[in-house]
Amino acid sequence: MNYPDRRKLVHTTSKASIVYGNRGMNLESEINLSNTFYREIDKAIIYKKPTPIKISKVDYKQNGQVIREGFFEKPSTTDYNGIYKGHYIDFEAKETKSSTSFPLANIHEHQIKHLLDVQRHGGICFLIVRFLIINKTFLLPSYKLEVFLEEESRKSIPLSYFLEHGILLKDGYNPRIDYLKAVDEIYGGVLYEKQT
Amino acid sequence: MNYPDRRKLVHTTSKASIVYGNRGMNLESEINLSNTFYREIDKAIIYKKPTPIKISKVDYKQNGQVIREGFFEKPSTTDYNGIYKGHYIDFEAKETKSSTSFPLANIHEHQIKHLLDVQRHGGICFLIVRFLIINKTFLLPSYKLEVFLEEESRKSIPLSYFLEHGILLKDGYNPRIDYLKAVDEIYGGVLYEKQT
Repeated sequence: MNYPDRRKLVHTTSKASIVYGNRGMNLESEINLSNTFYREIDKAIIYKKPTPIKISKVDYKQNGQVIREGFFEKPSTTDYNGIYKGHYIDFEAKETKSSTSFPLANIHEHQIKHLLDVQRHGGICFLIVRFLIINKTFLLPSYKLEVFLEEESRKSIPLSYFLEHGILLKDGYNPRIDYLKAVDEIYGGVLYEKQT
Repeated sequence: MNYPDRRKLVHTTSKASIVYGNRGMNLESEINLSNTFYREIDKAIIYKKPTPIKISKVDYKQNGQVIREGFFEKPSTTDYNGIYKGHYIDFEAKETKSSTSFPLANIHEHQIKHLLDVQRHGGICFLIVRFLIINKTFLLPSYKLEVFLEEESRKSIPLSYFLEHGILLKDGYNPRIDYLKAVDEIYGGVLYEKQT
């Protein structure tokens, strides 16, 4: 019997080299590309927020500052926000390796609370979740999340819930993931066109 | 003649030790405190975006990751955004030591362009500028900035322009700077109350 070479194993399970289905790009990169496309065609202005970092040591060099010690911080909000058709948009995107449910441990409770707060203030909020194994990506509007915040016993959102209440996002070329089309489907009635 | 000690000079001109007028807090801290207050009273949900950092070296320790090398990147957008009365809000805040004008070199051209882009999409956009020496802080709506982007020869915005077209922001206790009051004054007609 041939035991697999450990180095090879480590290599093939490193994040960069995992290819689920026939895609080679992770969800974040695809959303970033889609946002760039949306900005280029002037459809929406949406950006990923930088990762919050606590800096504790900086060197001052001739050609600028170099951070020598820093730590990743818990984000206070969600990763993405911006404006679409005059509306404030706010969302979080997550991948899961589970094929049956999205574990709520993957998202901070205060991030879900943030989405519901922004929703209450009139924003358009949602989660984008990709199930890597079955290679399906869903958009789930925030008002479908309330039940999971209210019931503390809920530890995950079943795939069946996404199938019933979410919108399946199809792969494309440009944009890679046309999630604003799903936003139109869900919120169409409340959206107005941008000022020109 | 006593030449100043170079180390002392470096110390006294460091950002933290400069106190202009009778305030000990910089503009960024005051806006952050105001935003926290606005969130606490549920008036608006506005955050400062984290500073973008390019990470080039990370150590993996038992209790987490430590960034060992990183560099500050130019922000793609403005520092602050969020939602107020159902509207997308986007702004940049800057201090200047000049007492006669705000040098446009203090703000990236693409940041002004970003404000005007968001404005075109229906967002509420502005600059907050503090003149440290005279201890005055103004809010200037983005539609008053267009002229400075069109005329490339303009290198600064004169204080007189802020006096004529901006709104003077008064100091307070909580919020420290009630800039949303100025937003109401300027955009009052287009704002609607949040969904309840």
